[in-house]
Amino acid sequence: MNTDSLPLWDAIRFDAAGLVAAIAQQHDTGEVLMLAWMNREAVAETLATGRVCYFSRSRGRLWRKGESSGQTQRLVDFRLDCDGDTILLLVDQQGVACHTGRRNCFYRAVRDGELTEIAAPAIDPAKLYG
Amino acid sequence: MNTDSLPLWDAIRFDAAGLVAAIAQQHDTGEVLMLAWMNREAVAETLATGRVCYFSRSRGRLWRKGESSGQTQRLVDFRLDCDGDTILLLVDQQGVACHTGRRNCFYRAVRDGELTEIAAPAIDPAKLYG
Repeated sequence: MNTDSLPLWDAIRFDAAGLVAAIAQQHDTGEVLMLAWMNREAVAETLATGRVCYFSRSRGRLWRKGESSGQTQRLVDFRLDCDGDTILLLVDQQGVACHTGRRNCFYRAVRDGELTEIAAPAIDPAKLYG
Repeated sequence: MNTDSLPLWDAIRFDAAGLVAAIAQQHDTGEVLMLAWMNREAVAETLATGRVCYFSRSRGRLWRKGESSGQTQRLVDFRLDCDGDTILLLVDQQGVACHTGRRNCFYRAVRDGELTEIAAPAIDPAKLYG
């Protein structure tokens, strides 16, 4: 896909750091997997390749999801919110989304006033990054 | 709930502006409704009342979701991600989440290279804010 001419570029409101928030949701189950950030280049690459690419704020560079762990995300649908500052990526997650080895990053919940782990790792992170 | 002593306060990583991203998801259907921001006070009020309160960056004040429109969100579960900088709110949305009158804010999608509206308003915004 030639993405240069997309009106999308006028619709996305990148912040002062050139980033926009991106929520990844498993397309068929509705599970919210993670939130990360994209810059213009990450958006363009994701749309061009169909494989999700973020911008890592900690590493200061493009982050092709799964490049180390093999846990890639295939893009199913790319959506933008009303004010253009959040993207919703419907994806097909290969394996687990979270670096802790859990399927999604939201494995802690407030229950009875306590922050409680509600999901165990599905795979040992050492196996993902070893 | 007395929220002062929650270990949650050590786990949430508020950014330099004192904010944390919050995704609202309809608890039973899995629909991602919106993304907004919370400060410490918004988190505390949400947990104490069970009614979702954000921090409006544009208005610079607490934003009790539905205070103008009546479209409130009842908190069902409060989850935190692995690095503590994103909250996932499972909610029961009264009516519509989006100020455009649509059920959720992600009503634009890239289809065949074009940014396309994929959902129509469920209610006239003038009726929400009139």
